[in-house]
Amino acid sequence: MHVLYVYAHPEPRSFNGAIRDTAMTTLVRAGHEVKVSNLYVMKFKAVLDPHDFRIRYNSDRFDPAAEQVHGFRTGSLAPDISEEIEKVSWADLIIFQFPIWWSHMPAILKGWIDRVFVQGFAFDPESGNVYERGLLRGKKAMIVATFGSSEEKDSHGGTDRTLTDHISSINHSVFEFTGMTALPPFIVFSTDTMNHEEGARQIDRYRRFLESL
Amino acid sequence: MHVLYVYAHPEPRSFNGAIRDTAMTTLVRAGHEVKVSNLYVMKFKAVLDPHDFRIRYNSDRFDPAAEQVHGFRTGSLAPDISEEIEKVSWADLIIFQFPIWWSHMPAILKGWIDRVFVQGFAFDPESGNVYERGLLRGKKAMIVATFGSSEEKDSHGGTDRTLTDHISSINHSVFEFTGMTALPPFIVFSTDTMNHEEGARQIDRYRRFLESL
Repeated sequence: MHVLYVYAHPEPRSFNGAIRDTAMTTLVRAGHEVKVSNLYVMKFKAVLDPHDFRIRYNSDRFDPAAEQVHGFRTGSLAPDISEEIEKVSWADLIIFQFPIWWSHMPAILKGWIDRVFVQGFAFDPESGNVYERGLLRGKKAMIVATFGSSEEKDSHGGTDRTLTDHISSINHSVFEFTGMTALPPFIVFSTDTMNHEEGARQIDRYRRFLESL
Repeated sequence: MHVLYVYAHPEPRSFNGAIRDTAMTTLVRAGHEVKVSNLYVMKFKAVLDPHDFRIRYNSDRFDPAAEQVHGFRTGSLAPDISEEIEKVSWADLIIFQFPIWWSHMPAILKGWIDRVFVQGFAFDPESGNVYERGLLRGKKAMIVATFGSSEEKDSHGGTDRTLTDHISSINHSVFEFTGMTALPPFIVFSTDTMNHEEGARQIDRYRRFLESL
């Protein structure tokens, strides 16, 4: 398969760095072709703004959706966006790896989604091309996430508000919305208190998971 | 009340701009003191990274949580973070106004939360100071959001995945986690297809909502 690995952690010598390294080795050994978007290393621009559009559809009033449709159709999106769109087009599977911050992804990755999954490329609500008719159908997407706290603590104060729910809302509202098939997420809990042995066990679990793809 | 208005839309001449203007007028007229963080105008840095910390706790290996605790305790956070922390400390109510992008907030606002609600200031899991013992207890927070699509379309493909669920997960995992009381959100649906008359009606609804605070 063609695998795009979108990675959003600021420290290479972290547990996130270790599981990313495991993924690179394992995926290549299994015969997959891999491209990486290492967002912190790329200093990826997180904020969708008028600079994303080299030729404006309407320079008086900035409407992000209208500019995205126009920018994609006329090939006038900023080069960093176009490069990511090419990678997404190429990929059969996109893996998003990130630490959970505030029950969601870090801003740099949210910005990748805001900027790269442009209207007209990833979905088109005007023609109803969303969900099963989404423009990225045929592709798969998967979340790999680390969470500092434990699964039990996370749900404190609200029994139905577990991290798994938040993740599954990303699966639905982002991946399935664009027509992609969301694979079950791979989540490592309690990384704040994890010892070396448990870390190694989780890395091993991740390797076996990737080998089964 | 002291109201901090955190606003994240790139176009002042948008419907979001209009409802923000309504909020400013209405809140001041009702006798509240208001401070504004207009994130696009401020060009607020969205990405939590090592530059957020003037004096590093550990310059070999970047652990965001450890650096936040250290940076807050030693007063060495980047100035733009410290300024926002002062505003949050001052506020009785924080209103977050944003357009829904991918069922969540724009990256620039996610980055505000990642960078400003630092560990040690907004919460402290080590001492169990989260939820009802969260460090921002006594304050209130509220989401004001616009959504291009309709409420019905949003839930397509999964009956239990409405926008209201996503918003309530932010209320719980961000606001209630820090000890704040989450007020019911104010959401305007179908802004993509809204005519002028309906827009005026929604603005009027918002004004009455704010007057009842």
